[in-house]
Amino acid sequence: MKVLLAGRFDAGEREAWLRHLGAAMPEAQWMGLAEARAQAHEIQAAVVANPPPGSLQGLPNLRLIQSLWAGVDRLLADATLPTRVPLARMVDPAMTAAMAETALWAVLSLHRGFFDYQQQQREGVWRELAQRRADEVRVLILGQGELGRAVASRLAAQAYAVAGWRRDGSELAPKLAQADIVVNLLPLTPATRGLLDAGFFATLPPGASVVNLARGAHVVDDDLLDALDRGRLHRAVLDVFHTEPLPAAHPFWRHPKVTMLPHAAALTDPRSAAAVAVANLRSARDGTAMAHLVDRGRQY
Amino acid sequence: MKVLLAGRFDAGEREAWLRHLGAAMPEAQWMGLAEARAQAHEIQAAVVANPPPGSLQGLPNLRLIQSLWAGVDRLLADATLPTRVPLARMVDPAMTAAMAETALWAVLSLHRGFFDYQQQQREGVWRELAQRRADEVRVLILGQGELGRAVASRLAAQAYAVAGWRRDGSELAPKLAQADIVVNLLPLTPATRGLLDAGFFATLPPGASVVNLARGAHVVDDDLLDALDRGRLHRAVLDVFHTEPLPAAHPFWRHPKVTMLPHAAALTDPRSAAAVAVANLRSARDGTAMAHLVDRGRQY
Repeated sequence: MKVLLAGRFDAGEREAWLRHLGAAMPEAQWMGLAEARAQAHEIQAAVVANPPPGSLQGLPNLRLIQSLWAGVDRLLADATLPTRVPLARMVDPAMTAAMAETALWAVLSLHRGFFDYQQQQREGVWRELAQRRADEVRVLILGQGELGRAVASRLAAQAYAVAGWRRDGSELAPKLAQADIVVNLLPLTPATRGLLDAGFFATLPPGASVVNLARGAHVVDDDLLDALDRGRLHRAVLDVFHTEPLPAAHPFWRHPKVTMLPHAAALTDPRSAAAVAVANLRSARDGTAMAHLVDRGRQY
Repeated sequence: MKVLLAGRFDAGEREAWLRHLGAAMPEAQWMGLAEARAQAHEIQAAVVANPPPGSLQGLPNLRLIQSLWAGVDRLLADATLPTRVPLARMVDPAMTAAMAETALWAVLSLHRGFFDYQQQQREGVWRELAQRRADEVRVLILGQGELGRAVASRLAAQAYAVAGWRRDGSELAPKLAQADIVVNLLPLTPATRGLLDAGFFATLPPGASVVNLARGAHVVDDDLLDALDRGRLHRAVLDVFHTEPLPAAHPFWRHPKVTMLPHAAALTDPRSAAAVAVANLRSARDGTAMAHLVDRGRQY
């Protein structure tokens, strides 16, 4: 089986992927874009990590496009992406665990005032804050896919009062009105873009906090800044941004109520993800059922 | 039953305790120091939260001293404390849960580099750090009392590689040499005072971090600062200090590798602790077995 491996990798990252994919599927031939073009008819699968637009054109016998990342919104934004080839997102157990850790860290920090204590330290202030029990903190998880469910279950195990919402489920406003902390793990689609806007923030109880671990384009930045500055929202924890890296002049960098991560909430781990990708490649080769396929209609 | 309630309480705190204790044991008469002195022979129990030294003298029929705090080192440092009256520490489920939350937050932050990311944000740096799995992070818990065990079990449930140590157990050095993160939950006794010194830090692997949730006097501050400044230690998370509040001139306040809390890792919650105290008061009154008694020989 000949497989295209295409993506924007950091130094050493491509080698790490080739090492782990090669070990998991030694019978495959892994090739880059130029080599794959030269034998376009023989390429049966593509393993991709945000490849340059157009990378997947002209491969007539492609049976699977396997993303190495969980989010496929950038892939779907490529108008040249073949529409009849199955597209699979990555569901890597290490990445899922990392996302649950980051969400738990953000929720613990907000619940127990640890961001506030760190601000107090910088200001030389020694002051104990009120201590709530975890079951008194209402956390709303937006998105009930693999990641949303993993986060909900990790938080519920720590006794938080967890609720969930998905776009085609119940009404959002009543759930927002009952949330002390909202954790966004929605897929980015035309229906969810800009969901976290002024109306969304105004529906939350005063003093609520927002954690965005999904996509920057879910948030209307000016509305978020306004809600923070007017004291409607207590804090925001943001891993993702409209433009990444976040431009140096963006007010999030220096905002005292914003805690930023550099899109590092959860990274795919080649050590476990290679086996997940290879299981799907073998299914594509053998004509058996593939896992984690994207619904092109829903766009996730 | 007449009970002395004595301690250094913040505004409103004494009233909160009286409300919850009174609801849990309406048949008791709760009184302050002056009132108790006037009827010293009738006082059968004392419920205390760091009372002024000497508070518990001259109460000949005292059957129980029930602390509202988990740590009793300050009580034991009072040379006038009656030695033949049973002394009980507080084991409050809400306080135990809060301690597990704080330890988990510190460990998650150290494991996933969240303190480093917050420093990067202040410096305007966008850089992804390497992501380890939780089972690759070795956490050593010092102390295996109620709190040490609760922390160990919470961390193990998140897949951390948890080890434990207690003073009269195995040798410490080999365990330190295998620890990426040390969480101190030891009682403060003459045997543990100053345990976290230059030799302790030098035994840890380079780049390890220390979390002190027990007592400030466990740490030799100058040795800790030296280990941080020479890069032996990666970070320290400190909830407790030799002098509290920590004096404004202390270098911990502004040290970039120190994250401070104002002795707020875990507070006793009157809503749950009142019932725990009252159960012991009833045992003292009825002559049945009391819980959480301090061993005066071991001093905890």
